[in-house]
Amino acid sequence: FKVALCQLSVTADKARNIARARAAIESAAADGAKLVLLPEIWNGPYSNDSFPEYAEDIEAGGDAAPSFSMMSDVARSLQITLVGGSISERSGNSLYNTCCVFGSDGKLKGKHRKVHLFDIDIPGKITFQESKTLTAGQDLTIVDTDVGRIGIGICYDIRFQELAMLYAARGAHLLCYPGAFNMTTGPCAPARDTSSSYVAWGHSTLVGPFGEVIATIEHDEATIIAEIDYSLIEQRRQFLPLRHQRRGDLYQLVDVQ
Amino acid sequence: FKVALCQLSVTADKARNIARARAAIESAAADGAKLVLLPEIWNGPYSNDSFPEYAEDIEAGGDAAPSFSMMSDVARSLQITLVGGSISERSGNSLYNTCCVFGSDGKLKGKHRKVHLFDIDIPGKITFQESKTLTAGQDLTIVDTDVGRIGIGICYDIRFQELAMLYAARGAHLLCYPGAFNMTTGPCAPARDTSSSYVAWGHSTLVGPFGEVIATIEHDEATIIAEIDYSLIEQRRQFLPLRHQRRGDLYQLVDVQ
Repeated sequence: FKVALCQLSVTADKARNIARARAAIESAAADGAKLVLLPEIWNGPYSNDSFPEYAEDIEAGGDAAPSFSMMSDVARSLQITLVGGSISERSGNSLYNTCCVFGSDGKLKGKHRKVHLFDIDIPGKITFQESKTLTAGQDLTIVDTDVGRIGIGICYDIRFQELAMLYAARGAHLLCYPGAFNMTTGPCAPARDTSSSYVAWGHSTLVGPFGEVIATIEHDEATIIAEIDYSLIEQRRQFLPLRHQRRGDLYQLVDVQ
Repeated sequence: FKVALCQLSVTADKARNIARARAAIESAAADGAKLVLLPEIWNGPYSNDSFPEYAEDIEAGGDAAPSFSMMSDVARSLQITLVGGSISERSGNSLYNTCCVFGSDGKLKGKHRKVHLFDIDIPGKITFQESKTLTAGQDLTIVDTDVGRIGIGICYDIRFQELAMLYAARGAHLLCYPGAFNMTTGPCAPARDTSSSYVAWGHSTLVGPFGEVIATIEHDEATIIAEIDYSLIEQRRQFLPLRHQRRGDLYQLVDVQ
């Protein structure tokens, strides 16, 4: 089946961002994509000032959550699976950086709240403290969809390989990490806008089970559409049977949850 | 300080291989290297037929272990730290694929017996079963040397990232993985000899703490000599404080030993 990675340009105009994301999803579906991915924080600027302003109450839905409602609606009408990048989510007094996954019936199949907040300080280059406004998620997230079992992480989560290893152990076919990587700490992200306070890296990339790059793009707004063949996963695992060769007598990665 | 990665060509002539390795080590030391690395199985062909034939009794030493004795002697005389790639080791009725680490006093500081044996079957491309002749090691191996704390793995061990993660957690400055990767499963190895039954990949590579390739070579016999600066490790860890940001409440990599 075909997957689409939409590298959107993001502005301060939320209504425009939502319309633009919808158009990109519709275009990808018209090109045959059965699974569509959006980038991290695509409905407004990536900044601590903006997170509260653009946040949506996902549980309330409807007018309180226009980005969420659009995603649900478009997934249902196009009958696609949608990994909705992330938006800031308001829940009670907390804000989360949350990825919503919609089934082809438009229903929310699962959501991932970013588990590892992006708190870094590289003097003279980049300082960012998501924890100033956001709360970290408390769960790993695997979602069963029409296009397979998908493990979700958001951006900085990718640097903690334990997450991906546990997803693989739980039988994920695909790992989706919507991201907004920056120019310093590097390489799926929004399109690059050098006038923004946070300049995204772009370079949305689809990688196969042999570590090979199936498709990648530069930093402008663009969509990758590429074929995914899960049978390659089994071939890879047969050829390099690492799962059965791990030395559980020497080390074990434990899922504490 | 300077490190040297010696990508040796290997023949069936053990005395020649030993002389050639010694010459490469001496040359590297003359160029200022304080740490010298050899590739996996450098004293004879990489094959199950050859492992017993070229094996040495490391504990006996002396004439029973000419490769071992050369390494100890050259480390002492040149006052270098030597990560001696690997040779097949005979111990009682067992054979191991063993990396010996020598201090600048020529003493054996530690040895690593390959923990993950290379047993793979890719039809039409490569089939190899180290376990036909070799026994797997039972220990992770960290060695404290004049040039820092070094974590050791051999070739296929590199595919099990838990090893590297535990070494990092134990404070290793440097991870050394002598290898003899092949043309199918890819990228420190001996030089390439396409007439051999096992064609090595070559491409010995030195990688820094940002994941950057500091130096790499193609597949001919050659030595990398490059500067290592451990202060970059602390800088990297300060900039991306992943150690402190792991979610031990969600997952834990446990050292079972």
